[in-house]
Amino acid sequence: MKKKIPICKHVLAGVLGAALAYMAVAQEPAMVGFSEASAQAQRNLEEQYDSHLKVQNLRDWMKQMTERPHHAGSAKAKENADFIAELFKEWGYKTEIEVFHVLFPTPRIRKLSLIEPERYDAKLLEPAAEADSVSLAIKEEGLPPFNAYSADGDVTAELVYVNQGLPSDYEELERRGIDVKGKIVLAQYGGSWRGIKPKVAAEMGAIGCIIYNDPKADGFYEGDGYPEGAFKHPAAVQRGSIMDLPVRPGDPLTPNYGATKGANRISLQEAETIMKIPCLPISYEDALPLMDALGGPVAPETWRGAMPVTYRIGPGPAIVRLKLEFNWDLVPAYNVIARMEGSIFPDEWIIRGNHHDAWVVGASDPISGMISVMEQARAIGELAKTGWRPKRTLIFTAWDAEEPALLGSTEWVEHHAEELNAKAVAYINTDGNSRGFLGIGGSHALERLASETAFAVVDPQTSVSVAERLRSSRLVNGTADQKKEAKAGGFGISALGSGSDYSAFLQHLGIASFNVGFGGEGRGGEYHSNFDTFDHYTQYKDPTFEYGIALIQVCGRLTLRLAQADIPPFQFTGTARAISEYVGEVVEMTEKKRKDTEERNGLIDGGHYARALDPKENVRPPKKEDPVPHINFAPLLNARDTLAKNADAYEKALKAVLVGEKTLSTDRQAELNKIVYRSERAFIREEGLPRRPWFRHLIYAPGYYTGYGVKTLPGIREAIEERSWNEADAFVDLTAAAISKFAKEIDRAARILNGE
Amino acid sequence: MKKKIPICKHVLAGVLGAALAYMAVAQEPAMVGFSEASAQAQRNLEEQYDSHLKVQNLRDWMKQMTERPHHAGSAKAKENADFIAELFKEWGYKTEIEVFHVLFPTPRIRKLSLIEPERYDAKLLEPAAEADSVSLAIKEEGLPPFNAYSADGDVTAELVYVNQGLPSDYEELERRGIDVKGKIVLAQYGGSWRGIKPKVAAEMGAIGCIIYNDPKADGFYEGDGYPEGAFKHPAAVQRGSIMDLPVRPGDPLTPNYGATKGANRISLQEAETIMKIPCLPISYEDALPLMDALGGPVAPETWRGAMPVTYRIGPGPAIVRLKLEFNWDLVPAYNVIARMEGSIFPDEWIIRGNHHDAWVVGASDPISGMISVMEQARAIGELAKTGWRPKRTLIFTAWDAEEPALLGSTEWVEHHAEELNAKAVAYINTDGNSRGFLGIGGSHALERLASETAFAVVDPQTSVSVAERLRSSRLVNGTADQKKEAKAGGFGISALGSGSDYSAFLQHLGIASFNVGFGGEGRGGEYHSNFDTFDHYTQYKDPTFEYGIALIQVCGRLTLRLAQADIPPFQFTGTARAISEYVGEVVEMTEKKRKDTEERNGLIDGGHYARALDPKENVRPPKKEDPVPHINFAPLLNARDTLAKNADAYEKALKAVLVGEKTLSTDRQAELNKIVYRSERAFIREEGLPRRPWFRHLIYAPGYYTGYGVKTLPGIREAIEERSWNEADAFVDLTAAAISKFAKEIDRAARILNGE
Repeated sequence: MKKKIPICKHVLAGVLGAALAYMAVAQEPAMVGFSEASAQAQRNLEEQYDSHLKVQNLRDWMKQMTERPHHAGSAKAKENADFIAELFKEWGYKTEIEVFHVLFPTPRIRKLSLIEPERYDAKLLEPAAEADSVSLAIKEEGLPPFNAYSADGDVTAELVYVNQGLPSDYEELERRGIDVKGKIVLAQYGGSWRGIKPKVAAEMGAIGCIIYNDPKADGFYEGDGYPEGAFKHPAAVQRGSIMDLPVRPGDPLTPNYGATKGANRISLQEAETIMKIPCLPISYEDALPLMDALGGPVAPETWRGAMPVTYRIGPGPAIVRLKLEFNWDLVPAYNVIARMEGSIFPDEWIIRGNHHDAWVVGASDPISGMISVMEQARAIGELAKTGWRPKRTLIFTAWDAEEPALLGSTEWVEHHAEELNAKAVAYINTDGNSRGFLGIGGSHALERLASETAFAVVDPQTSVSVAERLRSSRLVNGTADQKKEAKAGGFGISALGSGSDYSAFLQHLGIASFNVGFGGEGRGGEYHSNFDTFDHYTQYKDPTFEYGIALIQVCGRLTLRLAQADIPPFQFTGTARAISEYVGEVVEMTEKKRKDTEERNGLIDGGHYARALDPKENVRPPKKEDPVPHINFAPLLNARDTLAKNADAYEKALKAVLVGEKTLSTDRQAELNKIVYRSERAFIREEGLPRRPWFRHLIYAPGYYTGYGVKTLPGIREAIEERSWNEADAFVDLTAAAISKFAKEIDRAARILNGE
Repeated sequence: MKKKIPICKHVLAGVLGAALAYMAVAQEPAMVGFSEASAQAQRNLEEQYDSHLKVQNLRDWMKQMTERPHHAGSAKAKENADFIAELFKEWGYKTEIEVFHVLFPTPRIRKLSLIEPERYDAKLLEPAAEADSVSLAIKEEGLPPFNAYSADGDVTAELVYVNQGLPSDYEELERRGIDVKGKIVLAQYGGSWRGIKPKVAAEMGAIGCIIYNDPKADGFYEGDGYPEGAFKHPAAVQRGSIMDLPVRPGDPLTPNYGATKGANRISLQEAETIMKIPCLPISYEDALPLMDALGGPVAPETWRGAMPVTYRIGPGPAIVRLKLEFNWDLVPAYNVIARMEGSIFPDEWIIRGNHHDAWVVGASDPISGMISVMEQARAIGELAKTGWRPKRTLIFTAWDAEEPALLGSTEWVEHHAEELNAKAVAYINTDGNSRGFLGIGGSHALERLASETAFAVVDPQTSVSVAERLRSSRLVNGTADQKKEAKAGGFGISALGSGSDYSAFLQHLGIASFNVGFGGEGRGGEYHSNFDTFDHYTQYKDPTFEYGIALIQVCGRLTLRLAQADIPPFQFTGTARAISEYVGEVVEMTEKKRKDTEERNGLIDGGHYARALDPKENVRPPKKEDPVPHINFAPLLNARDTLAKNADAYEKALKAVLVGEKTLSTDRQAELNKIVYRSERAFIREEGLPRRPWFRHLIYAPGYYTGYGVKTLPGIREAIEERSWNEADAFVDLTAAAISKFAKEIDRAARILNGE
């Protein structure tokens, strides 16, 4: 599958070769970080790159790598790592497999029984689809459904249904006088990352946690189960990690440093990110008898799913016993690392990665993303065969043990932190792909690069660019405004939370990062189950692999533009805009919280809740809350304004150099490059965020109570959400200082461009 | 159950007796239409009234009247009418039973089978709850579930699921290329009055219609089925009329005149309000195999209910056969009419009514409302025993045959139209009652009366007035603003659509009306089913009948204040405010429609839908629509302003008279009274609304495509909704003229008060 990329009509004949080729006539640079001549060379390069892409490779590699289960520590995971490493070598990369030794508990005993009011022994067996070509291999080598890093335990208690198990759900329970202390909770997937559910349950005093996928969100409600349809089979289960990832990903026994063979390890008891209570995921087939056995009040309407029973909260009369034991073993994690040295800036690294380990056979997650790294590396290898070399160093990676806790990437980043801190320009991550719309999240300093790239890649199903297709979708779905979009012509990227291998790069070290993938039109309930297979993928996710090719075109451009740009393709007006938006949000949120608190307290004091509530329903008014103080946002607003000004000035200065109005010596350019690509480090606070020092980025972090979901300006935002006013004050100052530091770096860079 | 009504502290010692007792000191009248002296007398009267109310009567009468099925034409319906009539007589009312002869088809053959892809014969049997004390009587005398005024027919066709069967649902089908022509549709209850579903289906070319209650809206999703819980049993069915009521209620064979014994009758073929296709309601137990047999695309998420299957649209492979035949018989409808002559204004009538017929035994609908009329009449009879007489004539009514099509009340109103037009001051309707919050809809000229009444009756479950409890509920649910409510101190009433016996009074003749009932905390899925029994009611709806008493307190005050006020208690600032709100709405709706049309057409023209839609899903972009022209709303805005001015002037003039600043001769008062209570007639347009001349009120009407739901300024609003721009123009003028006429009457009244 190849599509020609349209070439801008006003492109002048380009001049190849020179590091900085300046043009005589001033005009808007068409490609961020490139002079017009370099841009023309780049377009030619990308056309050659595209010409090498082969859809058959994607299909063959996916088929081969998903033949058998390849979870971390499995034989097939090592085979796949070796396979990938051999290919990288074949394509001309200096390749090594770097091994870490990480804690990955696997289940030894899994038992769940309803013992009152009647006996039901949960099957806890996830079949593979008989019709699927890999069903036998799954039966023989697959891990059964479990939550990694659950505690061992044998608990018996009354059951309570807690909806999605979020803090707000427990507020609802409290209003009904229901306490989960000493109980076992039943939570449905959704609303947060799964690890939040047992974490909050444990905080609330629960002694066990069961997670099930409700068929409303993931099952027959959406369509037929696999293999008749794409969706979740009644007995299918979503596995997954429940380590306390919002506190810290990576090996629990080697915090902040690489889990090398001889590394010091803390004890299991000291490992704070291991869950405190036993927790098990089950199918809805197993959840139904539990739900059916619950009494007590009917659950609020938003808590009800699609199982054919009245959803009740309990506690009891259902009593369940949950018994779990794990093998707490270290396993080897095989990271494949392949390098192609930069010809001009060898110490400026562009890193591109995806993980190769899966929960079972993982066709979609992770192999549909992994093969995009491989085909991208192969195509660039083809370019190199002609004598071409990237200006900056390229590093392709295949991470192991992402599924348990981003282990492979985190250990690698921790182990190489110093060098990465000095040399990493950017990290580009993928983690699965399907038919649909382009999704890019990342550092906003790279937003312009993302936008230009998205306008340069043609959507396989329509005749427009993937950027335009996404914009049409946003317009039709009402998530974008027609007139604004028409004016802006732009393409916004989202902020990154967590849940994939960019986390250590971005949030621990402050390396500008992307996470990229197509999706939205692939169908399926295969996620982290036995049903995420080649057969499923090629029926329901991206049958022709044409979106695989599109992903390779997007990631190839991002990589190659980062590698080839005259000046690293960062544009700080994107950062300024995003930060301005986030600042506006936290200010507005505080005002809204103040108003809401006043109103709600007023309603409580006025007796309105007491009058409005049905006296027979036994629901209490909510609790009164302390009033919201006024917070001094001035430092943040000032920092925001300075950043906006400096970002504009940098953009003007950059343009002057790129269009040839000014020139730059080689020495000063090296200095400039460093300032530019290291700029994101300004957002790193050495001491990290409150209660989780590993997460050090003051602009982007996963939510402490959302898990994967991003919280921008996390120190401020979460303090306000949690009503920790002193902490909010402190983090307004800290965040403002970081933004000011960032703005100062931008100013330094602009001065170099201006020849000062 | 009795509670003392708090008396305002600033009430001065009152002077009883005189028709218009004027006070020396000017102050705000505490009771609309009353001088302070009269108001004090009225409070005393209401206290006496309350002291006569007996909760045991409510329980006894409900028990007795719900012993056996009492649908229109049944033996028990006649027995109940006789029973009520005897009581009215006993209490001192001049009572008669006025009989009309109305068409009420009952089922002879009901058959529904799935014949492809496999056979399923629908049970169509609604059991009665064995544990219920009336289950045997229901089995022996009850009508099976059916839709009254369905066509006879025997049709076989592919099945299509059409969600709620609303016009917007058919737009969704059209976007999927699905046509119901020649098909049988399956629609779920909800979203509109049930009769809209077969009506729209027939307009779309369907040849049959099946309606079921989805357990999500009405069944296990809410709680346990009766008798374990209050909610719908899997085999329970909602019966009900599907006559084309938005066109005209009442006997289909005697349009616009009373269905007396010798009346001319049109033929069945000429009767335009009889449904054109066969239509049958079924339980979800019977619906499940049909839904499960449907193929085709998965239904949009908002279309899916709680049955444990994937909701698909079809058409087919399910093929069903529906065979229905009815006995097209005339039945006698026994209206009970009881009068107590007014002592001062005998030709000014206050009418209070509820229907007595049910679908089965009807404890909640209608008996819980009927007994409030009876106990109210009894208590007023007690007052009369002391020699007291109402100033205006009171008429208590018990309507028959409301369920099929508001037959009893409509025929009575049509038959007595001339006299009612001259003499009726107001009609107060109830139609069922349960625990919860006060609901009042009605003519806004009586809004102040409703508000004062609601503040004067104490809620049985809290220590505040029913008005305050409702306000607290609105505040807590966010449907009212705290600061605004605190300032206003008021209590707004809603506008009336249709669905009960006020329709002919209000919308055919322009008699100011109320519909009143408590609700929101009674639980149940008993509506129009075998499960609406005394046992169910006393377990789940209003076990102590304390809300029955509250209803009698509210309706008693409304009746007695209307009867006793010095000047009829109309206050036109309420009308002015409501009309101003409605005018704002239609203007805003037009602007919004214009903007939405432009935006949507822009998205279609820009190709955004084509790009955004999944090419594999076979969903088409919506159709382009003609642009929305600018409509000349000036006449409406001018009429609104004049009304506001005149209503204010009337209020000032009335106050001056009531506080004794001015006086009024007896002659002029009689003239004034007539103008005031007939004012609502100004909104009547002789020719009626487009396509439904029976509905003649230009401010309130049921929606042509919603059924019960109100459309205010219906001629304008529905023309805009249906994009009939010429009709919208015409009805802006007609409605403005009616409002101007109303304003002129107010001005006439004010001039009389001012002694001009």
